[in-house]
Amino acid sequence: MITQESNQTAITPTRVQDYPEWFQQVIKHADMAENSPVRGCMVIKPWGYGIWENMQRDLDARIKATGHQNAYFPLFIPLSFLEKEATHVEGFAKECAVVTHHRLELKDGRLIPSGELEEPLVVRPTSETIIGESFSRWVESYRDLPLLINQWANVVRWEMRPRIFLRTSEFLWQEGHTVHSNAEEAIEETLKMLHVYRDFIENVLAIPIILGEKSPGERFPGAVSTYCLEAMMQDRKALQAGTSHYLGQNFAKASNIKFNNKEGVTEYGYTTSWGVTTRLIGAMIMCHGDDDGLRLPPRVAPQQIVIIPVIPKPEMEVEVLAYAEKIAEKLRSSSFHGKLLSVLVDKRDRRGGEKNWEWIKKGVPLRIEVGPRDMESSSMMVARRDMPHKQKVKVGLHEITDEALKSLESIQNGLYQMAKEHLNAHLRSDITTFDQLVKFFTPKSQDKPEIHGGFVLAKWCGDEKTEEMLSEHKISIRCLPLEQSGTQGICVLTGRPATLDAVFAKSY
Amino acid sequence: MITQESNQTAITPTRVQDYPEWFQQVIKHADMAENSPVRGCMVIKPWGYGIWENMQRDLDARIKATGHQNAYFPLFIPLSFLEKEATHVEGFAKECAVVTHHRLELKDGRLIPSGELEEPLVVRPTSETIIGESFSRWVESYRDLPLLINQWANVVRWEMRPRIFLRTSEFLWQEGHTVHSNAEEAIEETLKMLHVYRDFIENVLAIPIILGEKSPGERFPGAVSTYCLEAMMQDRKALQAGTSHYLGQNFAKASNIKFNNKEGVTEYGYTTSWGVTTRLIGAMIMCHGDDDGLRLPPRVAPQQIVIIPVIPKPEMEVEVLAYAEKIAEKLRSSSFHGKLLSVLVDKRDRRGGEKNWEWIKKGVPLRIEVGPRDMESSSMMVARRDMPHKQKVKVGLHEITDEALKSLESIQNGLYQMAKEHLNAHLRSDITTFDQLVKFFTPKSQDKPEIHGGFVLAKWCGDEKTEEMLSEHKISIRCLPLEQSGTQGICVLTGRPATLDAVFAKSY
Repeated sequence: MITQESNQTAITPTRVQDYPEWFQQVIKHADMAENSPVRGCMVIKPWGYGIWENMQRDLDARIKATGHQNAYFPLFIPLSFLEKEATHVEGFAKECAVVTHHRLELKDGRLIPSGELEEPLVVRPTSETIIGESFSRWVESYRDLPLLINQWANVVRWEMRPRIFLRTSEFLWQEGHTVHSNAEEAIEETLKMLHVYRDFIENVLAIPIILGEKSPGERFPGAVSTYCLEAMMQDRKALQAGTSHYLGQNFAKASNIKFNNKEGVTEYGYTTSWGVTTRLIGAMIMCHGDDDGLRLPPRVAPQQIVIIPVIPKPEMEVEVLAYAEKIAEKLRSSSFHGKLLSVLVDKRDRRGGEKNWEWIKKGVPLRIEVGPRDMESSSMMVARRDMPHKQKVKVGLHEITDEALKSLESIQNGLYQMAKEHLNAHLRSDITTFDQLVKFFTPKSQDKPEIHGGFVLAKWCGDEKTEEMLSEHKISIRCLPLEQSGTQGICVLTGRPATLDAVFAKSY
Repeated sequence: MITQESNQTAITPTRVQDYPEWFQQVIKHADMAENSPVRGCMVIKPWGYGIWENMQRDLDARIKATGHQNAYFPLFIPLSFLEKEATHVEGFAKECAVVTHHRLELKDGRLIPSGELEEPLVVRPTSETIIGESFSRWVESYRDLPLLINQWANVVRWEMRPRIFLRTSEFLWQEGHTVHSNAEEAIEETLKMLHVYRDFIENVLAIPIILGEKSPGERFPGAVSTYCLEAMMQDRKALQAGTSHYLGQNFAKASNIKFNNKEGVTEYGYTTSWGVTTRLIGAMIMCHGDDDGLRLPPRVAPQQIVIIPVIPKPEMEVEVLAYAEKIAEKLRSSSFHGKLLSVLVDKRDRRGGEKNWEWIKKGVPLRIEVGPRDMESSSMMVARRDMPHKQKVKVGLHEITDEALKSLESIQNGLYQMAKEHLNAHLRSDITTFDQLVKFFTPKSQDKPEIHGGFVLAKWCGDEKTEEMLSEHKISIRCLPLEQSGTQGICVLTGRPATLDAVFAKSY
C-alpha cells in the first residue's frame, strides 16, 4: 500500500531555506543535545549519547583488533609540558582552559578562588605532551616497541563561536598515541589508522569520504604530516571527519622518549597520534538528515526499529500490546552486523501520530504500526525512514524478520549511495584558474545563500604561501588526496606548473 | 601433580610487613597504574584500565536494565551553580580545581594565563548542580517522570594526600541522577540502585559488603539520607565501595526542578544520585591480593586464561605455538557468565619463568603451560591463581573447556568465600563500652601496626554530636546496617539507652 506524500515538513526551516538553522532544529527535534549554561559546552542528551555509544563500541573493537590497548591519562597538563613543543603550544595557546586554584573560599558572602597553584594546569586540549611523559618512562628498549595506546576522553578547546557537535569547548573523542622504532613503521601506523577510520565512517556511518594529506597550513601543530578524512555535507561544505598524524621525532624529543635499538644505540622514538570526536555526530546529521529530521544509518541507531501500537478502544490495549511485544521479541533474536536488533515497543500514553512523528524526527530506520486489524491478519504496516513518511508496506508476521533485515541493509546502503551521489555531483575537476575558483565558491542565488559551491579537485604547486590567497574567500585546501593522478598541470592559484592534486572547499 | 610451595613472595614487603606499601607494590608489579607528574592524578595503565572497562560493561548493563539512560553533561560548573545548595558547596569548596582563564599568552618568554573569565568555573567534583539545571528544563509534567539518567565521567576533587585508586584528585566514575514525583518512589530508587551495586560488587567483584545508611556526620553534602556499601579490606579497615543518596527536594529547590502533578499543581521534584568509582579497583586489590600480587575475580579479569608455551628448542617453536593457539581457540568459543572467554597466548620472546611470574602478579585466574611433551599426550598443565604457584594439574585437551569453566567458577566463588570469612572473623558484636571500643582499635603488636581492629557492630544512641568522640581515635561510624535488630541496648559511646545498630571501623 503506497499513500500520497505530504508536502509539509517536520523541521522548519528546511535545508534550502536556512541550512545552519535547519541543523540546530534537527538536533532539537531529535532531542540529541542542547547548549548548556557553560559557554560553548553542550549537554549530550540520551538519544545523541546513544549514537555516540554505538560509535564507540564499533570503533573501539576496530582499534583493539589492530593491537591497541586502552588506558587513561590525567585531565590536566602542567604549563611546562605544553611549552616543550614550540609549534604545539602555539597552536593551542589561544584556546586553553587554565586551572589556577585548587579551592574556593567565602569572602564577603561570595565564593572566590583560593589556594593558588604554583604552576597553572591546562585542561587537556589533546594529550601528546602528558602521554609523552609516561611513554618516556615506559619505553626503554626496542623490545617495548611498538607501543600502541588509545584513550577515550573529554578534551577542552575554548571556542569563541561554538556550534553543537561541530565546535564545542568541551567534546568527547578517542586519541590514539603510538611509539615506533623507525619512521617507516610509524608512517605505516598513521595510514593504517586512517584506513580504520575510513572503513568505520563509510561502512558504519554511511558517509563517503576523501582520504588525503593536509597541506602545511592545515597541519596539526607539531606534526610532520597530517592525514585526514574529508566528507561533503549537504550544503556542499567540507567537514574534517578525523585525522591521523605522523609526528616524526618531534614529540619524542620534546618528551624524551628514547629506546635502545638492536645495536644497543639510544635513539628517539617515532610517534603517531590519531583521533575522531563527537563531531562525527554532527557530520552524520548534516550528511543524512532531511527536512523531516534525522535519518540514522541502522548500524548506529540507538533503536533500529520502533513498534507503535495503534489502540482504537481501551479494551483492545492488552491484546494489541501483547502482539506488539511478540513481534519485538521475534525481531530481537536476530542480529544485524553482529549485534542483536534493538527494538522498542512505544507504550507511552500518547497519540499514535505524535509518536510516529517523534520517531521520524529522531531518524529511526524502521517504524512498525500494529493495530487490531493487523493482529487479525497476522501482519503489520512497515515504514522506512528513507521513504516518504506515509508510505507503508504490509508485511506478514512470518516474514517480518527477513524483511526487516533486508530493509535495514537497504537503508544502510541507500544512505551511503545518496551521499556518494551528492559528493560526485558537486565534485568539480574542470576548474583551472583562481577566478573560476572564487566564482564557483560565490553564492549565486539569494534564496539559498548557504548552499553553494562544492569540492574542487585542481592542481596546486605546493607553495605554502599561496594558501593565504584562499583565506579571504573562506576557501581552504582540504587535502591532497592519497590517490594522486601524477599528471602535469597548471596551479589553480598561481598558474605555475603543478603536479599535485588538491581538493579545495569551504569547510566547517 | 602437586609440587611444593615456595616461601618466597613476589611482592616485597608482604601484607603483614607493611600493608600500605604492599598495596603500592602490587599496583606497580601488576602494571595497573602509576602516579603522574600532575599532583594527585594517576595514569591508569592498560591492565588497570582493562579491569575498569570490564566493570563498566557489566555495571552499565545493570544500570540500563533498570531503565536508566546514559547522557553527558559539561565538565565545568559555574561558581554560581555550586552556591545554590549551601551544604553542598561547603562540602566541596576545599577540594575544587578552579578554571579562571581561557587562554595562554607569552610574556617575557614565559607562558602565563590570560583571558580571565567573568565567572570562574569549577571542574565538576560531582554533577548535581549542573545536571539539575538541565533537569529543570527537561521536567514539566508528571508525565516526564521518573527521569532516569546516568553519566560515565571523570571528576576532580583536589586531594592533599593522594593514594592511587583510593584517593586521587581526578578519578573516573558513573553518577546516576534521577527525578521522581514523590518521596516514596525516590527512596525506592535510592535503595534499588544500592542493591544493583550490591549484586555487582558481591557477584562480579567477589567482595562481600554490608549495606547501610550513613550517620548524619558522614552524609553526602546536601543529601537527606546517604546509603552505602562498606567492604572490609585485609588490614580490616573499611572501604566505602559506593553510595546512593536520597536528596529529597533540596537539590530540586536549588535547581528549580518543578513539575505539574496530576492535579495540575506545581511541585518540586524528588531527586536521587548514586555512584561508584575507580576506587573499586583499589578495593579489589586490597580485598583479594596476596603476597604474590593481584588475584582477579574471573568475571573482571582482562585476560581470564593465559597460555604460556614452553619451547626447549627453537625448532619446536612452530609446533608448540600452533598447539597453544589450538587450545586458545577452543577455549575462546566458550562463554563464562555470558561473555566469551578471554584467552591470551603469550608468544613474547621472554623466559617462561619470567612470563609465569608476570601473570601471577597480574592476577590472571588460570595459567596454562604447554610444551612438547604436553603436545604429545594431548594435554596441558593448569595452574590456578588461588592455589600455590607451583601447584599444577594435568588436564587433557578434550576436557580443558569444562575444567577451565569449572575452575573459573570455583575461583570466583572461592575469592568471595575467603573475603566473607575474613569479614566474619573480624566483625565483633560483643563490645559495649567506649573503652573497649578504643582498645579494640589500638594496635597490639609493633610487628604489624597496620593490621588490627576490624568492624564493631554495636548500639548507638543516634546523637549526631557523639560522632565527634570517635574522630581523635580515627574511628568512624561506617553505617547503620539496613538489617536492624530492633533490640534495646546501651550506646557504646555514651552508655545511654539505644536501639540503633551501628558499624564502627577505621576506614580508607
